[in-house]
Amino acid sequence: MINTKSYAAQTKESALAPWNFDRRDVGPHDVQFDITFCGVCHSDLHQIRDEWGGGIFPMVPGHEIVGRVVAVGSEVSKFKVGDLAGTGCMVDSCRVCENCQHGLEQYCTNGNTLTYNSLEQDKKTPTYGGYSNTIVVNEDFVLHIAETLDLAATAPLLCAGITTYSPLKHWKVGKGHKLAVLGLGGLGHMGVKFGVAFGAEVTVLSTSPKKEEDARKLGAHKFVVTSDPAQLESITGYFDFILDTVSAEHDYNQYLSLLKTDGVHICVGAPPTPSALLAFSLIPGRKSIAGSTIGGIAETQEMLDFCAEHNIVSDIELIDIKDIQPAYERMLKGDVRYRFVIDMATL
Amino acid sequence: MINTKSYAAQTKESALAPWNFDRRDVGPHDVQFDITFCGVCHSDLHQIRDEWGGGIFPMVPGHEIVGRVVAVGSEVSKFKVGDLAGTGCMVDSCRVCENCQHGLEQYCTNGNTLTYNSLEQDKKTPTYGGYSNTIVVNEDFVLHIAETLDLAATAPLLCAGITTYSPLKHWKVGKGHKLAVLGLGGLGHMGVKFGVAFGAEVTVLSTSPKKEEDARKLGAHKFVVTSDPAQLESITGYFDFILDTVSAEHDYNQYLSLLKTDGVHICVGAPPTPSALLAFSLIPGRKSIAGSTIGGIAETQEMLDFCAEHNIVSDIELIDIKDIQPAYERMLKGDVRYRFVIDMATL
Repeated sequence: MINTKSYAAQTKESALAPWNFDRRDVGPHDVQFDITFCGVCHSDLHQIRDEWGGGIFPMVPGHEIVGRVVAVGSEVSKFKVGDLAGTGCMVDSCRVCENCQHGLEQYCTNGNTLTYNSLEQDKKTPTYGGYSNTIVVNEDFVLHIAETLDLAATAPLLCAGITTYSPLKHWKVGKGHKLAVLGLGGLGHMGVKFGVAFGAEVTVLSTSPKKEEDARKLGAHKFVVTSDPAQLESITGYFDFILDTVSAEHDYNQYLSLLKTDGVHICVGAPPTPSALLAFSLIPGRKSIAGSTIGGIAETQEMLDFCAEHNIVSDIELIDIKDIQPAYERMLKGDVRYRFVIDMATL
Repeated sequence: MINTKSYAAQTKESALAPWNFDRRDVGPHDVQFDITFCGVCHSDLHQIRDEWGGGIFPMVPGHEIVGRVVAVGSEVSKFKVGDLAGTGCMVDSCRVCENCQHGLEQYCTNGNTLTYNSLEQDKKTPTYGGYSNTIVVNEDFVLHIAETLDLAATAPLLCAGITTYSPLKHWKVGKGHKLAVLGLGGLGHMGVKFGVAFGAEVTVLSTSPKKEEDARKLGAHKFVVTSDPAQLESITGYFDFILDTVSAEHDYNQYLSLLKTDGVHICVGAPPTPSALLAFSLIPGRKSIAGSTIGGIAETQEMLDFCAEHNIVSDIELIDIKDIQPAYERMLKGDVRYRFVIDMATL
């Protein structure tokens, strides 16, 4: 077994604190990589507080993981020692269901294995995430990371990146389209970068006028303050797509009115409570409201390659792991530009 | 002017009663046809009671209209006296917006002219519907009706038919797809017929076990009683599409759980009140909830031609116009198989 250092929550009430545990030895199809950086996702906080229920404790969060390979199994063909490597939200899936067969492991109908707070495919061994010094993952769920990108700023691509890249690709958002990005946070700022890279006209919708400067720096063509009724009115029926990254409760009907005929409102943020939807918000323009989560493994690699080619990374604030608690507190207030990444050398 | 006999509501409180009014003379581009049959749509009742607001009274309802041409304007090229003709929910549109240019007059962004309770494109002349003996319509909004179909049973195709045909075509529902039709009424029974004709496996979802026999007669392959939790559980993640024809309030989240990955829940019924939607019902399977209304004029003609070719009409109960009130009362109770059609000879 591989003794592993981490920061873990022992219960849903406890703060993160150092914890040592054993990872499995490197099997024939496994890659072990030492973790250099790990991004901090809002869902880390939801899960260590067990806000979605069913939490497996002790819990080591973290699913935006990059580092360098230190060992490979005898059958591994895709990686060698010294390679950069990354792992996102999944470390395995059933591999036999229709979705897995089609590269949609994120929608595995038999239940995929998430990187932490989840069970391996044996359905009994818990998984532990990237707030740790090393990780062992089946090579099929390890991603190649380009040597040319800023490595720390690459980590959030594994969740925030693919979560916004995948739906924009699925709905073929690009040249000639008007895309709204709702909310400018960890997901939203990546949505802007990808929307711009794909050739769409990108408008950031935000309640905070203070974000306009940043939105424009990120490449957004327009900025609309949604709390101003006149500004909202001016974009009625304007967009082909809305990429909705907001996970606080909000009124879908209001945003659906901003879509053109056949427009699609894509939810990647998930408010914990239901929102009132009127069928009349959808029917008169054949509009849709849809959801999407991360992406498949092949698509995640495609995204990382696209980022390498276009020099796209996240805007980050690098932190020491001992500062994770104040970072969470700032994240809760939306006070992060735009993703915290832990320097795992500080563990 | 053309003196016209009708049944009209003088106010939102009054029952329908005989009323004479003048229709415009036949202009160069107009077709006049005498109305043989007019279908009874649930929306007729909503509108004469002004339940959606903004009602224009006196109101002559009816937008499932068929008959025979008695006069054509000097410039009319598509119809001649003696032809069968039909008109659905629209009698004009702006014709210049992007949607009109693309044959989507139902989504005219400048506001189309509905067949009744609406204004002509001059934005001041009210329109009067098909509970009348004759109608004058611009030839571009008149449909050809096959001589081979049962004419009375063809009338509901102009609304109930196109409302279900259009989304099934738009989302390319066909062979290899599992389609659920939610609700077996005027719209639902047409959804079953078209779904079967397009080659999908069709399941009727209904709260009423009594409808199974009818569902199977209409061609449905399966029938599920939605009030039985065990039956519902057995179809979790089963469908590619749900055609939702229910206009009473219902829980979208429950039905979204019946969809496969990438499944689409299509609302053609419009509950008057909002329904609680959880983003988590959409995100884990990249599902969508969408809306659709009627179809464009070219698509309506395509649907009528498809029906002629495949001998598809509505299942109807033919009534005298003097019996419209009891018909409405039965319709409110869902007691009609599956559409009332008024024999306009009884006017």
